Amino acid sequence: MNPLSSPLLTDHYQLMMLQSYLEQGMDERAVFEFFVRKLPPGRNFMVAAGLEQALDFLENLKFSPEELAWLTPRFPPAVIAYLEKFRFNGDVHAMPEGTVFFPDQPILRITAPLPQAQLVESRIMNLLHFETLIASKAARLVMVAPHKLLVDFGMRRAHGAEAGLLAARASYLAGFSGTATVLAGTLYGIPLFGTMAHSYIQAHEDEATAFEHFARCHPDRATLLIDTYDTETAATKVVALARKLRGEGIGIKGVRLDSGDLAAHARCVRQILNEGGLEKTTIFASGNLDEYRLRDLLSSAAPIDGFGVGTALDVSSDAPSLDCAYKLQEYGGKPRRKRSEGKATWPGRKQVYRSYSANGCMIGDVVALEENDPHDGQPLLMPIMRAGRRIHAHATLDQIRQRTLAEYARLPKAMTTLEMAAPYPVVISAALQILANELDAARVLNP
Amino acid sequence: MNPLSSPLLTDHYQLMMLQSYLEQGMDERAVFEFFVRKLPPGRNFMVAAGLEQALDFLENLKFSPEELAWLTPRFPPAVIAYLEKFRFNGDVHAMPEGTVFFPDQPILRITAPLPQAQLVESRIMNLLHFETLIASKAARLVMVAPHKLLVDFGMRRAHGAEAGLLAARASYLAGFSGTATVLAGTLYGIPLFGTMAHSYIQAHEDEATAFEHFARCHPDRATLLIDTYDTETAATKVVALARKLRGEGIGIKGVRLDSGDLAAHARCVRQILNEGGLEKTTIFASGNLDEYRLRDLLSSAAPIDGFGVGTALDVSSDAPSLDCAYKLQEYGGKPRRKRSEGKATWPGRKQVYRSYSANGCMIGDVVALEENDPHDGQPLLMPIMRAGRRIHAHATLDQIRQRTLAEYARLPKAMTTLEMAAPYPVVISAALQILANELDAARVLNP
Repeated sequence: MNPLSSPLLTDHYQLMMLQSYLEQGMDERAVFEFFVRKLPPGRNFMVAAGLEQALDFLENLKFSPEELAWLTPRFPPAVIAYLEKFRFNGDVHAMPEGTVFFPDQPILRITAPLPQAQLVESRIMNLLHFETLIASKAARLVMVAPHKLLVDFGMRRAHGAEAGLLAARASYLAGFSGTATVLAGTLYGIPLFGTMAHSYIQAHEDEATAFEHFARCHPDRATLLIDTYDTETAATKVVALARKLRGEGIGIKGVRLDSGDLAAHARCVRQILNEGGLEKTTIFASGNLDEYRLRDLLSSAAPIDGFGVGTALDVSSDAPSLDCAYKLQEYGGKPRRKRSEGKATWPGRKQVYRSYSANGCMIGDVVALEENDPHDGQPLLMPIMRAGRRIHAHATLDQIRQRTLAEYARLPKAMTTLEMAAPYPVVISAALQILANELDAARVLNP
Repeated sequence: MNPLSSPLLTDHYQLMMLQSYLEQGMDERAVFEFFVRKLPPGRNFMVAAGLEQALDFLENLKFSPEELAWLTPRFPPAVIAYLEKFRFNGDVHAMPEGTVFFPDQPILRITAPLPQAQLVESRIMNLLHFETLIASKAARLVMVAPHKLLVDFGMRRAHGAEAGLLAARASYLAGFSGTATVLAGTLYGIPLFGTMAHSYIQAHEDEATAFEHFARCHPDRATLLIDTYDTETAATKVVALARKLRGEGIGIKGVRLDSGDLAAHARCVRQILNEGGLEKTTIFASGNLDEYRLRDLLSSAAPIDGFGVGTALDVSSDAPSLDCAYKLQEYGGKPRRKRSEGKATWPGRKQVYRSYSANGCMIGDVVALEENDPHDGQPLLMPIMRAGRRIHAHATLDQIRQRTLAEYARLPKAMTTLEMAAPYPVVISAALQILANELDAARVLNP
């Protein structure tokens, strides 16, 4: 059983509800929408991601013999018989990955028989939430350092293996240059980057020998880590090594700083390298970096060519979760509304329309009902899957990445910094507000 | 290829270093230790977890034909030949899962030929970091609510599938009662809990019918969610339903609150239930709970019997990462020390000795060299794996859980609340300090 695609990757109540739905014959079409309730503090927008993995999950969903064997003593025969034949055959509408979005805007809608749409809730949320979280975090780093090499270094402190892999994907999709995680390169074709660890230096009797071994092993590709003992001393060793190797036609690609005052070290090291004729040897920095440290380093004009960002990216350190939900908006053709205090939802099947200025800048969105509620602007939710099968060929990850970068260019200028901008205008259509009021009124009459 | 056990779940530099180690014949025994540099803000201690998964990873590590096919065009034939035969055959020492520990204390030590010990770094960190993070968070919730039912509800907002599964395991190990994640029940035997979702209520034409369907479907096991529309109105419906079903011998186990002022609602609902003769029907609460909200609810004596804790647990919301490291401490029999600014490590193979008062309370630890540096107290690091194989039979998860609960009972009283206590005394042995100074002095003489 592959845990990443198991239908048991769900909450126990989904199976308990499914049992009851089957007993009651409640298998009419249900419409669920996934949306984020509010922006994390300090954020201006979010970037949709994770759709590809959600679609893979839906397309391949079935119960294995081992899974059925585990379920059999726990659920009635009618449930087991249903699960044996279980396939997802619903429809999916979604914003393409890389789309910028805002609170209360559905980024995915599932229309399927109620037991199906219910069962997949937990994993669909798990995938969309996490990749959207990381893409939205990565967007901030990319906007702060748009012309720098940005590499995901975070797998070791990501929350498990899948988080490391999906963080590599989501950050690349959002504009990162690549990742250090080999398996993410293998699975998704993301460019791989790697330097060396302190242990490599420490395992050698002296630093200069370590540098030479690594440079000879990886001609023209070695990025040497120079902070294990003394950064500037190490930089002079790099210059000496480069002189020695030049005659053999071996170049040194770069050096990496990983501790201390990165801006000050970068300036000293740049000078040492330049005086040693290594103007083309790059300086790469890492070590507890986030978007604020990147901004400060760049605004101080520190001569750093690229950054490895680890933990802050892979756990989205300032906002490790999004307040998101997957809610029933329609069942058997009738709109539904949850009224829980502080958690009320907008009912019905919805569409989001986005308007642009003459020069292509986003100027405002309308969240409207999908039917009989037309609005100007570009509809953001597209049909993606019909009867359990993808409608379109996959977009490549590089195509999605290009689309994401184009989205940033259309954001209002004030939203492309780390400062809080005025909230982006998102209007709830009159028809949608009226529907919500009607449902509430009906509830009051018939509590 | 199962991504969760793939040896490519590593950083690219591990392979680049491995290539160089092989070229240089650097395959002497290396000693790496995993430790946490400092406590997250507001925390008094940590709980070691993840060892079981780390050992599984090491025991089963090998490169599949597909993985080798991917590597072949990217690395020289000598590297591929080495990886074809790659198995982990090193030794592991570790603190048993559930052990309370503090900064600078290794919780795991790997002794293996350098290329092996290096290659496994990324995944070993990824596993130990995350489970330790979650167990340490769960410990706080358990200490605040020791006699309540605590259930992990977090999979949907955990960072990917493995995070959801391992969070269920780590929180159960740390004293939780169970999880909602079905696959965690299947894989680890953790007790499963489930109630119902708002969508179940919404899919029905009215709430009372929804309650009745669910209660009949799950006799004596149904926990009814009562906040979809109006909590107190719903509670009166539960009373009416219980009366109706009593004659048929069907009981209702509990109700769940998920929004609003949980303490106020719990009091009203308790009264409604009691007046309706449902004194034994439990009240379960959920909705953005963390250890502080639990403490407040319990100190206000809110009549709540159990809690579902989701996002705050599964992402360790106040501290979504630990400042941890896996560092080379010895190579070829010689101790090693990293000197990077602010990140210097204690060199050599280490042991941690813990002392207890006469009544069994922890009173202080010594971090010492493993050899020729004896100290009083209980040694916490035990031999766990020899030559790539586990020495002992697995402890069951329930045994680990009992051990963890026993650990809490031995903590200094002041450390078992959410307040910051005086730092627990951890002393670095004189011999270890002298060794560190000697290594630094040698480095100054021979930079």
